[in-house]
Amino acid sequence: MSSHPLKDVIAAADRAIGAEDFDTLMDFYADDATLVLAPGLVATGKAQILKAFLGVAEIFDHRLAVSPGKIEVVESGDTALVHREAIFDTVTPEGEAVSTTRRGTCVFRHTPEDRWLCVVDNGYGHGLLGRC
Amino acid sequence: MSSHPLKDVIAAADRAIGAEDFDTLMDFYADDATLVLAPGLVATGKAQILKAFLGVAEIFDHRLAVSPGKIEVVESGDTALVHREAIFDTVTPEGEAVSTTRRGTCVFRHTPEDRWLCVVDNGYGHGLLGRC
Repeated sequence: MSSHPLKDVIAAADRAIGAEDFDTLMDFYADDATLVLAPGLVATGKAQILKAFLGVAEIFDHRLAVSPGKIEVVESGDTALVHREAIFDTVTPEGEAVSTTRRGTCVFRHTPEDRWLCVVDNGYGHGLLGRC
Repeated sequence: MSSHPLKDVIAAADRAIGAEDFDTLMDFYADDATLVLAPGLVATGKAQILKAFLGVAEIFDHRLAVSPGKIEVVESGDTALVHREAIFDTVTPEGEAVSTTRRGTCVFRHTPEDRWLCVVDNGYGHGLLGRC
């Protein structure tokens, strides 16, 4: 699955988060997309998702970079289920660099215009089920 | 998310696997559904998916029961991303009962006829990415 076009899409969305280019970031989401903010708490639609990302940027004091790790895509018709690693790099107020890798799950929809739009974005992956 | 109708759908599909009622089981899948057989190996469409389940029944000597554990559903429009536990109970040739719990990921599509059809069924969940 090394050459799937969704890998480039995901990498570009991650770069937009780090650059705080939220106009570009919102282009990756479908109008009715759902973003999981925490287990049991979601943002639905671009307006709510934008607010969530603005909040995240604030929480990390505008020092958050995201990059993709391993990505696996399973397609069915115009739907793609993505399992992905996301590597979060930030700097604490004390100046310490911190890197965290999380495994998330997303659903993308392929549009007639040959674009992939994120429909569900769950950065918690199976963490929604609690610990193993 | 304790009352989501997909919980009943998933429980009924699990029962159909144990009962080897494959006609009923196939009704849960969309025509273009993809089932992950192993990392990097998928069955696409009902004919291939049916063959895969027939093979699984054979491998487990017709002694496989599946039941749902924890299930979390994230919806967006007519799409639902499901994280689920599946509890597999079987009996070895030596007569020993074995129970295994796995965490899988599925995508369901809601149809205009008010049905949920499984579009992607990945019993491996994040296992597709290898070990943490």
